Amino acid sequence: MDKVLNLRLSFPIVGKSLFIIAFALFSCTFVALLFSEPVTPFLYSGLIATVVGFSLYGFKNTKSQIESLTKKDASLIVSFSWVFFSLFGAMPYMISHAIPGFINAFFESMSGFTTTGASILTDIEVLPKSILFWRSLTHWIGGIGIIVLVIVIMPSLNMGSYNLFTYESSVQEKIQPKIRAVGRRLMFIYVLLTVAEIFLLMLGNMSLFESVCHAFGTVATGGFSPKNTSIAGYSPYIQYVVMIFMFLAGVNFVLHYYLFKREFKKIRQNEELKFYFFVVLIIGFILTFSLYFKMDKPFEESFREAFFQIISIVTCTGFASADYLLWPSFAWMIIFLAMFLGGSTGSTAGGIKMARHLVFFKNIKRFFRQLQSPNAIKNLKLNNNIVSDQNNRTILSYIVLYFLIFSFSSILLVALGIDGKTASSSVATCMAGIGPGIGTVGPVSNFAHLPDIAKVILSFLMLLGRLEIYTVILLFFPNFWRK
Amino acid sequence: MDKVLNLRLSFPIVGKSLFIIAFALFSCTFVALLFSEPVTPFLYSGLIATVVGFSLYGFKNTKSQIESLTKKDASLIVSFSWVFFSLFGAMPYMISHAIPGFINAFFESMSGFTTTGASILTDIEVLPKSILFWRSLTHWIGGIGIIVLVIVIMPSLNMGSYNLFTYESSVQEKIQPKIRAVGRRLMFIYVLLTVAEIFLLMLGNMSLFESVCHAFGTVATGGFSPKNTSIAGYSPYIQYVVMIFMFLAGVNFVLHYYLFKREFKKIRQNEELKFYFFVVLIIGFILTFSLYFKMDKPFEESFREAFFQIISIVTCTGFASADYLLWPSFAWMIIFLAMFLGGSTGSTAGGIKMARHLVFFKNIKRFFRQLQSPNAIKNLKLNNNIVSDQNNRTILSYIVLYFLIFSFSSILLVALGIDGKTASSSVATCMAGIGPGIGTVGPVSNFAHLPDIAKVILSFLMLLGRLEIYTVILLFFPNFWRK
Repeated sequence: MDKVLNLRLSFPIVGKSLFIIAFALFSCTFVALLFSEPVTPFLYSGLIATVVGFSLYGFKNTKSQIESLTKKDASLIVSFSWVFFSLFGAMPYMISHAIPGFINAFFESMSGFTTTGASILTDIEVLPKSILFWRSLTHWIGGIGIIVLVIVIMPSLNMGSYNLFTYESSVQEKIQPKIRAVGRRLMFIYVLLTVAEIFLLMLGNMSLFESVCHAFGTVATGGFSPKNTSIAGYSPYIQYVVMIFMFLAGVNFVLHYYLFKREFKKIRQNEELKFYFFVVLIIGFILTFSLYFKMDKPFEESFREAFFQIISIVTCTGFASADYLLWPSFAWMIIFLAMFLGGSTGSTAGGIKMARHLVFFKNIKRFFRQLQSPNAIKNLKLNNNIVSDQNNRTILSYIVLYFLIFSFSSILLVALGIDGKTASSSVATCMAGIGPGIGTVGPVSNFAHLPDIAKVILSFLMLLGRLEIYTVILLFFPNFWRK
Repeated sequence: MDKVLNLRLSFPIVGKSLFIIAFALFSCTFVALLFSEPVTPFLYSGLIATVVGFSLYGFKNTKSQIESLTKKDASLIVSFSWVFFSLFGAMPYMISHAIPGFINAFFESMSGFTTTGASILTDIEVLPKSILFWRSLTHWIGGIGIIVLVIVIMPSLNMGSYNLFTYESSVQEKIQPKIRAVGRRLMFIYVLLTVAEIFLLMLGNMSLFESVCHAFGTVATGGFSPKNTSIAGYSPYIQYVVMIFMFLAGVNFVLHYYLFKREFKKIRQNEELKFYFFVVLIIGFILTFSLYFKMDKPFEESFREAFFQIISIVTCTGFASADYLLWPSFAWMIIFLAMFLGGSTGSTAGGIKMARHLVFFKNIKRFFRQLQSPNAIKNLKLNNNIVSDQNNRTILSYIVLYFLIFSFSSILLVALGIDGKTASSSVATCMAGIGPGIGTVGPVSNFAHLPDIAKVILSFLMLLGRLEIYTVILLFFPNFWRK
């Protein structure tokens, strides 16, 4: 067997996944026709994706080759797929001249597929509706992509970087024999959430087009909006609907699945869910009171703005209902730090994730308990499953590594001449897949003015964050390409 | 035995350590006499310390009580001692009216004993020389205090928070049976370094008084200077001398001990030393070139300023030879992040410390190695000793906890109305025991303008950082005081 790393092995799988992109691109031609807009951007891009997809698919793998796939191959396939998605996703922007230049188009596309929502567009509403639809659709594809990857594919490959999820071992046991069935059910839940949100948004008199785009952006915790003012221009009702669905999208989709199967006990036992709920509640109320007392806003408005924004940041969506840069510095400092929280594992949310923070706190708790009674060496449990020492180390290292990459990248951006606030918040928001930052990349600004190199670095950080660092970094180890 | 926590047990030991403070205070009367300054501040403070010391010492412990001392008691004794030191250390400032108000005096005193070097003094040179001497002496006492604590006392108690040091198990084996002897030798090395620096500084035509004060501040990695301009006003020769001694003070004192015993092999095997050297070298040169090319300074000046500043920050000394806030933003961003490095374990330096960072990198390396060849479960080694899973977890958790406390405290200070840069850098610099920060607490500013609550919080953070967090936090667990 070809041992120059099974690079070839990845071709058919990446090719297959390109068919999804081709299909999505073709479906946009209908949207273009509907709004009497040019179909060529999608038709051409779709055709190219199909041709490249077929060429890659041609390197067909034998069954034994598929079975020989290792974690290394999986890393490669996943990273390649996301980069390929972003490359083909950038084509409609360039062909339609909606976005000038390859780097800008690639940034927007990567921001879409990684469900980040950081944009280089200065005026969104002038663009053709079909392009805006495609933009939101990249979120939606990226969202379901990450769920299937994390919940279905990775555990079956026993990938280290994703074994955070495998604490839910009861699911894993069930999932292993019937990967496809579970994948289909998760997709069903994903579609159901999307449809439910579209319906509720339309009840609030949002147009079908905007409802669909916003639902795509919400359920995928993406954050692209077809409106320049994001969610700020809509009624409180709409804002509450989006808020609730952002929160739901930040919940582990396996729990949605349990809800569906009426296994309430398992939901109640989920510690990450409780922790997620608790964190959002606490920070939400701190922000509410700070807006209420410091900015003299009416209570309902304070409550709505505070909770919308903190849910948007914690779930890494990035929709904005208010410009938090106008809030007291104390409040936006909390927003900045909340960028390091992240939603639940197995959700579409990015960031460090609640489960990792929870494991950290349990480590601290156990440490002090052992100081008190040194002989009580207790296992660390999450959701009633023991966290092995190896997983524990991996999780703690992940948090430190996350901060390390954040620090280095911030310095890099500052070295490019970007001010410290903008630099560090750009890095934080892109790594976590949120969207807006602080400084000149706040919720009413965009990333257009950053130098090209910064956009390339940030695109890379989006990928790094979305694929949970280890997957991507592995490819940069010289050892990886050996043997 | 009295079980309301052996609070009483701590009295005689804290009392005993107060005699050291009383002795130091009395010795300052000679300095005062020498400069014809009032002796009352030191005489009164010394007398009070003696009286309180004797009263506490009166609660004599039986031998069995001393043997029953637990880690909890040790935490209590150590934390109490540092707080008592700072309380009595603040007295001369108040009695002499050198520093107005208790909170300011306590801040300055805590900053001294924790070898931080953050000051609330706006004009240092107007103060009596004896007060400045006392100020530098608090550094020197704090420095030897932390070395004896970390290298001699803690390992013998097998304290969790300090077992970072115990990797040097070969030392531990030797140390255990002859605690006093090792303690005495370390003190000898400490005095030797101090005397050597005083001698070299005087060779550069610095006055004896200033040489002694600066040597105290250097060897303890403290940072108080009797000059308003810190080291900036002195000749390049003086700056190089201080630089070298700061670097030496950031080295594990056990290695100095080995040097003394001519056990060079053990020094060469020490990974932390290599890492420390490497980190300083890399960052030093990055800064050198950024000053040389961006600020058009002569090369020698760039080299000297860059290396002086990075050594001062990494070793948590805090002496300044230049105002780094005038450097390119890229450079002072590196300075800010370098505040999270810290010197070596078993040195007088504060911060997260090199060994912890090294253990983190080794975790990452091992993780990727295991992804490559899953069956090769290799032990993690530091300085040729295996790092147990428990120690490993404790180290990784420590880094995360450090960042967590940094984040919370920064928010707290911002909530008090302090700007973000000043708030976060004040917290970073006080936790690590450095001294100057960024914003309005830069190297040519001071902490005087901060609100009183901020000073109290920062004093607490100095203590927290100096005693490696766990020791102090333990006291805040309700469980601690039970049984």
